[in-house]
Amino acid sequence: MSDLVNVAILGASGYTGAELVRLLSRHPRVALKALTANRKAGQTFASVFPHLGGLDLPDLTAIEDVDWAGIDFVFCALPHGTTQQIIKDLLEGPHGARLKVADLSADFRLSDPEEYARWYGHAHVAVDLQKDAVYGLVEINRAAIAKARLVAVPGCYPTSAQLPLVPLLRDGLIDPGMIIIDAKSGASGAGRDPKEGSLHCEVSEGIHAYGIGGHRHGPEIDQGLSLAARMPVVSSFTPHLVPANRGILSTIYVRPVAGKGIADLRASLEAAYAPEAFVRVVPEGSVPHTRHVRGSNYVLIGVHADRAPERVILTCVEDNLVKGASGQAVQNMNVMLGFPETQGLEQQPLFP
Amino acid sequence: MSDLVNVAILGASGYTGAELVRLLSRHPRVALKALTANRKAGQTFASVFPHLGGLDLPDLTAIEDVDWAGIDFVFCALPHGTTQQIIKDLLEGPHGARLKVADLSADFRLSDPEEYARWYGHAHVAVDLQKDAVYGLVEINRAAIAKARLVAVPGCYPTSAQLPLVPLLRDGLIDPGMIIIDAKSGASGAGRDPKEGSLHCEVSEGIHAYGIGGHRHGPEIDQGLSLAARMPVVSSFTPHLVPANRGILSTIYVRPVAGKGIADLRASLEAAYAPEAFVRVVPEGSVPHTRHVRGSNYVLIGVHADRAPERVILTCVEDNLVKGASGQAVQNMNVMLGFPETQGLEQQPLFP
Amino acid sequence: MSDLVNVAILGASGYTGAELVRLLSRHPRVALKALTANRKAGQTFASVFPHLGGLDLPDLTAIEDVDWAGIDFVFCALPHGTTQQIIKDLLEGPHGARLKVADLSADFRLSDPEEYARWYGHAHVAVDLQKDAVYGLVEINRAAIAKARLVAVPGCYPTSAQLPLVPLLRDGLIDPGMIIIDAKSGASGAGRDPKEGSLHCEVSEGIHAYGIGGHRHGPEIDQGLSLAARMPVVSSFTPHLVPANRGILSTIYVRPVAGKGIADLRASLEAAYAPEAFVRVVPEGSVPHTRHVRGSNYVLIGVHADRAPERVILTCVEDNLVKGASGQAVQNMNVMLGFPETQGLEQQPLFP
Amino acid sequence: MSDLVNVAILGASGYTGAELVRLLSRHPRVALKALTANRKAGQTFASVFPHLGGLDLPDLTAIEDVDWAGIDFVFCALPHGTTQQIIKDLLEGPHGARLKVADLSADFRLSDPEEYARWYGHAHVAVDLQKDAVYGLVEINRAAIAKARLVAVPGCYPTSAQLPLVPLLRDGLIDPGMIIIDAKSGASGAGRDPKEGSLHCEVSEGIHAYGIGGHRHGPEIDQGLSLAARMPVVSSFTPHLVPANRGILSTIYVRPVAGKGIADLRASLEAAYAPEAFVRVVPEGSVPHTRHVRGSNYVLIGVHADRAPERVILTCVEDNLVKGASGQAVQNMNVMLGFPETQGLEQQPLFP
Repeated sequence: MSDLVNVAILGASGYTGAELVRLLSRHPRVALKALTANRKAGQTFASVFPHLGGLDLPDLTAIEDVDWAGIDFVFCALPHGTTQQIIKDLLEGPHGARLKVADLSADFRLSDPEEYARWYGHAHVAVDLQKDAVYGLVEINRAAIAKARLVAVPGCYPTSAQLPLVPLLRDGLIDPGMIIIDAKSGASGAGRDPKEGSLHCEVSEGIHAYGIGGHRHGPEIDQGLSLAARMPVVSSFTPHLVPANRGILSTIYVRPVAGKGIADLRASLEAAYAPEAFVRVVPEGSVPHTRHVRGSNYVLIGVHADRAPERVILTCVEDNLVKGASGQAVQNMNVMLGFPETQGLEQQPLFP
Repeated sequence: MSDLVNVAILGASGYTGAELVRLLSRHPRVALKALTANRKAGQTFASVFPHLGGLDLPDLTAIEDVDWAGIDFVFCALPHGTTQQIIKDLLEGPHGARLKVADLSADFRLSDPEEYARWYGHAHVAVDLQKDAVYGLVEINRAAIAKARLVAVPGCYPTSAQLPLVPLLRDGLIDPGMIIIDAKSGASGAGRDPKEGSLHCEVSEGIHAYGIGGHRHGPEIDQGLSLAARMPVVSSFTPHLVPANRGILSTIYVRPVAGKGIADLRASLEAAYAPEAFVRVVPEGSVPHTRHVRGSNYVLIGVHADRAPERVILTCVEDNLVKGASGQAVQNMNVMLGFPETQGLEQQPLFP
Repeated sequence: MSDLVNVAILGASGYTGAELVRLLSRHPRVALKALTANRKAGQTFASVFPHLGGLDLPDLTAIEDVDWAGIDFVFCALPHGTTQQIIKDLLEGPHGARLKVADLSADFRLSDPEEYARWYGHAHVAVDLQKDAVYGLVEINRAAIAKARLVAVPGCYPTSAQLPLVPLLRDGLIDPGMIIIDAKSGASGAGRDPKEGSLHCEVSEGIHAYGIGGHRHGPEIDQGLSLAARMPVVSSFTPHLVPANRGILSTIYVRPVAGKGIADLRASLEAAYAPEAFVRVVPEGSVPHTRHVRGSNYVLIGVHADRAPERVILTCVEDNLVKGASGQAVQNMNVMLGFPETQGLEQQPLFP
Repeated sequence: MSDLVNVAILGASGYTGAELVRLLSRHPRVALKALTANRKAGQTFASVFPHLGGLDLPDLTAIEDVDWAGIDFVFCALPHGTTQQIIKDLLEGPHGARLKVADLSADFRLSDPEEYARWYGHAHVAVDLQKDAVYGLVEINRAAIAKARLVAVPGCYPTSAQLPLVPLLRDGLIDPGMIIIDAKSGASGAGRDPKEGSLHCEVSEGIHAYGIGGHRHGPEIDQGLSLAARMPVVSSFTPHLVPANRGILSTIYVRPVAGKGIADLRASLEAAYAPEAFVRVVPEGSVPHTRHVRGSNYVLIGVHADRAPERVILTCVEDNLVKGASGQAVQNMNVMLGFPETQGLEQQPLFP
């Protein structure tokens, strides 16, 4: 058993926590040693998530009660804001030298502290760490992740927006001033905290936009697009809530630069993702559905001709809890620890 | 009873047919005299739509068996293609002089026969009628409708796209070359014919785009936008299928012309719809949900600032079976016959 | 306007409150004068329920701020427990002599104070009123309701269980010792308060039983069945949560007494409900769906032969927010005030 | 690779076919060699089921084109009726001596040919084989399955009904004359063939019973219960359609025999399933949800006290496509071929 990595999950009582447990329980190199959930400390994990009642797992504990001496890798699935102090304490504490962290919160995603303060409403308390943190979009950033000790796992929407756009901007194929991302997400993205807007009666049987023009994933998307374009990009980004548990679809409207067309865009994306295990450009004429990736770490990208000849439409689907959160976190862990990148992530999508 | 209008519904066994019956059964000036459904002729309406089993209705018949002598007004809810010949025969037949028709199919929506042939794959067989037909978007076209004997009831998507855009184009406030309509529809828009893509397992728990760049409602939308802009407009229009029974949301991205901004757009729309009974611009900060209009003839329009300073985002919701089909057809009938426009359409939305 | 009744709704910010507003807004004899919601006092009704934003309604107020001098009829849609004191104060207060009340809570449904204390965990504070209150199952209890000043509107499950069973027990056709009620409800029955178990992700895509053997509607059902059977009845009653917004289906297993069979049961129910506007026994071979009554005050009852020759299966569907709550409350008001019983309740079901 | 079993799936274009592919693609001892779907022969599997597009699979072929010389094991997921002739031809054909078959249809489930003819409307064409076929409820029938060459995989409802009832009847703890099974299933049980009753608009947002008193799974259930009780049993069995893709919940009402009570029932079930990998009796006070087993081969059983003191309520959940069909078929294959029983079936449930 000496080749097992001892893992702690902080914030294990939310949907991303449960999803980490589901994936890691089948990972051949992982031993789950600590699961924290301060408000539910002392409860069995099975009482909080009965669907995982068949697993042999430690009970939920408070963060304060974790024995860090035995932990090698930490997944942090806590709310943003509180996360930065906890990770700072961990990495600067007595066991910090050995620990590696994949943080699923938003706390280390924005590299500019002022941008963070502007969108999250308070100064960042771990600015030094913020500089060190590596943005964990593996397909774009693999080399840096392999050397990181703190990875900021990308947001669910930013993953589905950046994967199709970054290669096109890097290759100079589209106008950075005309990028419109119309995104649709299932309800699990809102988490398990009871809120009126997350009730079945308020989510089912309809659709609506939210956070129009002001969602915090907007600047995260633009940060990645600007890096790829080597110039400041401000995209339009509108999230919508869909009556489904899982899945994000981003429908993206772009304008090829003069002399370039849909064939160039398709070629760029196919070249970028041919070597990748989890990202696939679907054949011409195919349209990705979120249900084609449900429960898996896969991403599907479609490239579609528009009626308006100057525009091209891209579609990108992912499971927001897997590639959009916990699966991507495990993929980062695999890279950070030198494991095969697909380990623990080989499950096929569940349909219907 | 001499003040009752005798009504026939052709194609009463589909969802729009049932919806016409639901609305007209409570209309104080309407007597439902004939309900046709050729494949289900002879069945009771209650056996096909048990939810309306409490009404006293004629049995379903074949079109051939309708006694036209007793009919004043016809709703035609037949598939496109077959409709044009039937309406031609009716209006040129012995009772044609007295009949008025609201056609819910696509057959008379495109005024240009070549455009029709291009998108529907065959020459129009009633070109003369096509010229006479009036496009039944009541809020935009009321005066012409009042004098029409044949109204082409607009498509569900075109209604939700044109209502927010037409005033802005008419007032010259937005760039006609940068209009992107990302539309989301519930499943009833696909009708009651059994198709694999309409099965519960294929629709629920996910979202996908379809007809990207090639949906037949695209040219219908552009026809209306071009008229308003007094120049040819080619919009981007992408429909999506949402796991809900009813409702269309169009999220629309526009660019104000130089010197104009979001306040001008809001003012234009508020001025256009202040006198209207069924269309409402929601207050700043509010976001329309499709569930806010479920089962009703209402349309709600939102005007939203974007992060990208040069763009404005519009949202528009309707019930695709009511304002997007049968309710708008009844509204047209009211205008054509001189009834109060809201008669039979006063029901409040059903939520949750 | 002297023929209008001035109505107050206490607890207007819940789903049953909204449903009362939807129905009463179209009632020709009702003026909505006060809407209370203590935690949301001061807000517009439209901000809490945007789907009713087209109505001209008073803002939400605290109960303390209602001007009772102007109120004739009160709908009380408050949580159980608090209700009894409020209604006691109202009816014993200065305006009590004129007021009539339809209470949608559970507080006055159980006529035996000890039974109330046993199931609700505390002594009833208005025992005198509890004796006066009339159980508002209109089809069973119409004469008493017409003379009542306080009606306890039946629970949603008890309505769907009693309507098919009471005539059979009254007529001595079934064994009172073998009654099994397997009931399934949509999510709106749990109300609008945010609870983990009511979240979309916890309700959609599955089904489960709850309150097995211990749901408070059990004794309410048995109270009605015992009255009809003129002997104590203890039924089996298991509620389930279905991923739908509205609707209750009760599947009921009974055993005809010796010498009686399914034809006798059907005849008894048809005789009982032939004169009724809202309850219909569906033809042999038909099966009621909850979607056949969605949004309406109708109840459909099916009578089905079982493979086990000694048993008969009954099915009964209602909309839990209409006939199971607000619609039945309006129906009670109509009876209490001498209005036509169907007034304001003529809307047809909404499908799909 | 000599330790791989070569597998053919007949009828691979339905939901159970896709589910077999999903499970077997991760089975370490299986090579998928042939996938048939006569109406879709020639298409890629990915074009029919894009969610499995990441797998390297043979194209769909006609049954006639399968090279049986290379096949060791056959999963038959064809419609009932056609299946019996095909399996007869296979097992009596040139390769029959080597082949083993797990049949997911109903053709070999009823051991009595007259019972088959009565419920399926025609004489069985492979009566000899029908006698040899072993009923594949692994937990009940493991020894016989290990020696079988043809296994009839149990129906989805019968699995969820027999697992909780068989031990109780075998142990003589409940009255065989009072067994009521109220079952609820997700929509995938109806298959992928387009039918009006399977459309999203007809399934979502409601619930209804179907096949009341006449569903073909009734006699299959009774066959198993009668064997366990060693006397003829006729249960009441009512299936319902739930708006979810996957999952069956059976709520079962039983009467303990004199001198026995709920504790005896719980003890019997716990003893029966303690050694089992896939069946678990949940703790007192817990209630199984279908979502607790989604996508997995697990079965959860609850034992609940009723208010009616003479009755006990059992609940049992499964995923109808896994333990109710394809997972149980793989479990049978594992037993028939001497593989570890859980191989390929270790995936944890997917929630939400």
